[in-house]
Amino acid sequence: MIDQLIAKIKKTNAPIVVGLDPMLDYIPEHVKEKAYRELGETLEGAAEAVWQYNKKIIDAVYDLIPAVKPQIAMYEQFGIPGMQVYVNTVRYCQKMGLLVIGDVKRGDIGSTSQAYATAHLGKVYVKNSEIPVFREDFATVNPYLGIDGIKPFMDVCRKENKGLFILVKTSNPSSGDFQDQKLEDQRHLYELVGEKVDAWGSELMSGDYSDVGAVVGATYPEQGRTLRKILPKSYILVPGYGAQGGRGKDLVQFFNDDGLGAIVNSSRGIIAAYRQEMYSKYGPEHFEEASRAAVLAMIKDINDALEDSK
Amino acid sequence: MIDQLIAKIKKTNAPIVVGLDPMLDYIPEHVKEKAYRELGETLEGAAEAVWQYNKKIIDAVYDLIPAVKPQIAMYEQFGIPGMQVYVNTVRYCQKMGLLVIGDVKRGDIGSTSQAYATAHLGKVYVKNSEIPVFREDFATVNPYLGIDGIKPFMDVCRKENKGLFILVKTSNPSSGDFQDQKLEDQRHLYELVGEKVDAWGSELMSGDYSDVGAVVGATYPEQGRTLRKILPKSYILVPGYGAQGGRGKDLVQFFNDDGLGAIVNSSRGIIAAYRQEMYSKYGPEHFEEASRAAVLAMIKDINDALEDSK
Repeated sequence: MIDQLIAKIKKTNAPIVVGLDPMLDYIPEHVKEKAYRELGETLEGAAEAVWQYNKKIIDAVYDLIPAVKPQIAMYEQFGIPGMQVYVNTVRYCQKMGLLVIGDVKRGDIGSTSQAYATAHLGKVYVKNSEIPVFREDFATVNPYLGIDGIKPFMDVCRKENKGLFILVKTSNPSSGDFQDQKLEDQRHLYELVGEKVDAWGSELMSGDYSDVGAVVGATYPEQGRTLRKILPKSYILVPGYGAQGGRGKDLVQFFNDDGLGAIVNSSRGIIAAYRQEMYSKYGPEHFEEASRAAVLAMIKDINDALEDSK
Repeated sequence: MIDQLIAKIKKTNAPIVVGLDPMLDYIPEHVKEKAYRELGETLEGAAEAVWQYNKKIIDAVYDLIPAVKPQIAMYEQFGIPGMQVYVNTVRYCQKMGLLVIGDVKRGDIGSTSQAYATAHLGKVYVKNSEIPVFREDFATVNPYLGIDGIKPFMDVCRKENKGLFILVKTSNPSSGDFQDQKLEDQRHLYELVGEKVDAWGSELMSGDYSDVGAVVGATYPEQGRTLRKILPKSYILVPGYGAQGGRGKDLVQFFNDDGLGAIVNSSRGIIAAYRQEMYSKYGPEHFEEASRAAVLAMIKDINDALEDSK
């Protein structure tokens, strides 16, 4: 699967992914009001607003990017109607030629991780029928439970040609509470997790890179540099660009010398671009055009930084 | 919220929770066949089988126990119809007077954890309406992202009178991969996580105990003993009884001297009891009676062990 992502990155010349994390606050009033008129101030109404918002953004940017990363929590908060819009969003993006990284951060003991892996990347058996469920191409996974929790995802990846991004060093301010702990042998926990991801990933190569990638926040460039070395064959999914503080020049160390190896996510910075001063000329009425402009600016920022670093 | 759980434990004299983790393999053929005849070999058919199976078990055991713990992965694997059955199961259990611990193991960066907390324990705002979504009473949470990921859950607990169980030392064989790592100061990572849970929990007391509990696997009695001391005010949710290997006598150290402080989960050992030699006389036709017998045996096993340890 990672070979497909790399092919799309090369084709678009855009090592970026758009995070479809539609908080209601981001959605322009006219979109919400229309949905509420049709379906009420209900979970259905909120989910419809999310769906209309997503569709406009996807239509406006799909030709520029290789992949999207919907954050399932933003759909789960609207219950069943929200989950249905998550499903619809995954399908719609794939129809538009995009790869979908399900940002689900699941992880549990073996048999339970197997159910999650089946749900998101695999097919569930119902008697003699084999049925795909959420159908993402990649999923993010939490490593706290160890290899037991990861292996069922890897098994499904092997069988169905899918990929993972395992949380190693997350972008949030308190990610250091546990991830930065120094172990007895002076490594940090995130380094140990990185080493494990590298070892696990070596069993699932797909060309020069592994189908097992890592999540490392843009907000931690030093740790990014260290983890790049520990994980030479893993794609690094880098959240935290833009709104969370990361910029192109801080991100070059997440890439390998081949110009590959990383894909940078921006969520709010793209989908709510119309609320930024820089894109205010589009206004809420043309929010999707602001998103397109923000995608173009982000691609240029990162490619310029990569060019400068050569 | 923990005071409500304690009251129910005292009333039933049963410090146990039944894990509603309905794998299709556990469900008797006659239940599945009926569902498939009505709704096909589809996600809807599988979800219906799960629902009928759950209802029978709940009806058979609800008067014996304080709480249930549905594992959301087992529902998520059947997509939207599965999630609807998760919702229905939560509601049905609550209608029968049970508290519901949503075993969701969510955890993310701040704004995303907030969406999960809203989804599972809180209410989502849709314009002027405040709508509860999945409506569990407790949720399990993954700590790998640090306090950022936990605080939004705590805020919702405070506002809505709900509770948490944070993963500290999980029951699976490879839980040691990271959780048992020795830190520079010779503590294990699970001890540090335990200390943090204790500190966080002190902000959310509800009587003698905190609304912030911990998950510590029955399969690790030594770590249970250590964590009991580190976390004197936290309820410990103890998975891994029965099928995963734990027995009553191994579990006394998870309890405090007041006889409280722990609640032991069994999933397969209860809901699929009819498949055990010991309960074979019930047969698949009366699987729910086997579950009732297994609940009674589990309560006795644990209470006998607690009595013996006095």
